[in-house]
Amino acid sequence: MPSAKRAALLWVLALLGACAPAPPALVSAPPPAAPPAGMQYLYGSGEGAALSAQAWNALLAYVSAKVKARPADSVVLAEGAALEAPHFVPCGEKPFAAIFDVDETVMLNLGFEYHDATTGKGYDAADWDAWERTGEGAVVPVPGADGGIAALRKMGVTVVFNTNRSTANADATARAIAAAGLGAAVHGQTLFLNGDDAMGSHKDGRRATIASRYCVIAMGGDQLGDFSDLFNAGQAVPARRAATMRPAVAAMWGKGWFILPNPVYGSGLKGGFDDVFPMDKRWAPPADGEK
Amino acid sequence: MPSAKRAALLWVLALLGACAPAPPALVSAPPPAAPPAGMQYLYGSGEGAALSAQAWNALLAYVSAKVKARPADSVVLAEGAALEAPHFVPCGEKPFAAIFDVDETVMLNLGFEYHDATTGKGYDAADWDAWERTGEGAVVPVPGADGGIAALRKMGVTVVFNTNRSTANADATARAIAAAGLGAAVHGQTLFLNGDDAMGSHKDGRRATIASRYCVIAMGGDQLGDFSDLFNAGQAVPARRAATMRPAVAAMWGKGWFILPNPVYGSGLKGGFDDVFPMDKRWAPPADGEK
Repeated sequence: MPSAKRAALLWVLALLGACAPAPPALVSAPPPAAPPAGMQYLYGSGEGAALSAQAWNALLAYVSAKVKARPADSVVLAEGAALEAPHFVPCGEKPFAAIFDVDETVMLNLGFEYHDATTGKGYDAADWDAWERTGEGAVVPVPGADGGIAALRKMGVTVVFNTNRSTANADATARAIAAAGLGAAVHGQTLFLNGDDAMGSHKDGRRATIASRYCVIAMGGDQLGDFSDLFNAGQAVPARRAATMRPAVAAMWGKGWFILPNPVYGSGLKGGFDDVFPMDKRWAPPADGEK
Repeated sequence: MPSAKRAALLWVLALLGACAPAPPALVSAPPPAAPPAGMQYLYGSGEGAALSAQAWNALLAYVSAKVKARPADSVVLAEGAALEAPHFVPCGEKPFAAIFDVDETVMLNLGFEYHDATTGKGYDAADWDAWERTGEGAVVPVPGADGGIAALRKMGVTVVFNTNRSTANADATARAIAAAGLGAAVHGQTLFLNGDDAMGSHKDGRRATIASRYCVIAMGGDQLGDFSDLFNAGQAVPARRAATMRPAVAAMWGKGWFILPNPVYGSGLKGGFDDVFPMDKRWAPPADGEK
């Protein structure tokens, strides 16, 4: 081969070589080496377990005081209440209840999240529906939830689940709740689902239905929408965070409203740099290595 | 240009075009479009703020009961105690205190984490040291911590900080604590640091020193090492999580030991798939689309 032609060919081969690190188009990426940080924290760590156990311990201490001294008001916001000036559905002589979300509040969806993390598909509505229907063998209780729910029932407090799982899968969801060691849930009585009313995933309507039957002395959830739809009225990320810390709302956390950790999915995982890091709280190492 | 040569050139240009999507080797990757999920959750979300406020509310309720009825024992594990059978340093007539870690327990390191997320450098010891020395303008209190710490002092409880920031930066750390609205901290009295004894980042020795002077009725931290070094004795990830849920330890969360969320960094972010997802809790969608 003439050396000029040969040099040209080598140059082309070098170009091709430069291309080599670019992966071919794959149907799906190879599985990651480890679960994402949020899953390590929520499903694997002692810190995450302790945080959940703490919420359940605080809830039991709070509820045991309330069953001894019946409160005038429930912890369910009354229709027309605003976060700035909350007021609550009255208790009257109604029997005591506590309302809980299901997913990542009382039950960890280990099977689905394993599938999510290993396939890298992200949330897929068809897969989630299949999970609701067939996942009962691959769930565990949130640390503290199984003992906590049993203790509530022993105190005479009815446990009501209010979840955005579908009414179409009510039986399978009741089976999953039982399989996680959380006891019985009866659709329309102690289990409320997305599709029970015309409000879709908004839970205020279902909460109002439950509060019309019970004196709700505690609510638990991993998303702000488990406490009030007013947190999901389209606020910007910083305004939504600020809404949780206004005095009347801030006073509810751990005192009627009990939040469980979820850094894996949901309404807490939003925001760009300008939402999360205020302009006046940014920093870079001093260029001169200031001592 | 002869058409053969021109075809060859076009072919080479096509190859170069195929290369185009592969990024050139850069000294550092371009900044990400948004902060990582853990930072969105901890620094930006209402859910994260509520979780922190809940821990501080639970702590204040617990401490206000304890100052009215002095306990026989502190919540600091005694020398030689095991997690399986914990026993605690006695209180005697010592004055009340509460011990807190600093970073992500009472103070959010917004400035450093902004730098970390935008540069994509990951943890850098020299940058962190510069942050300890110069970061006081870019910190905020953990939601609930500023009011909580003020309320503790009003109840007559001495607030003692036990942090792994360096003794070399004691003055700057005291300034950062004050800048976050958390009041005064005096090295050796109400501020203990890495380097105060020969145990490095292990905090048991410093806890013992504090418990020899005070009746410690509450501890707060975002890492299990803020409660006992026994959680960091080299256990596998699942064993470490199980250790937090043994009955005697599980009973401490929210009742003497108060944990704050941190899905951003630290000992909670560990583990491979086999550590985080038990073999018998895995799932995939049924291949037949089972109904």
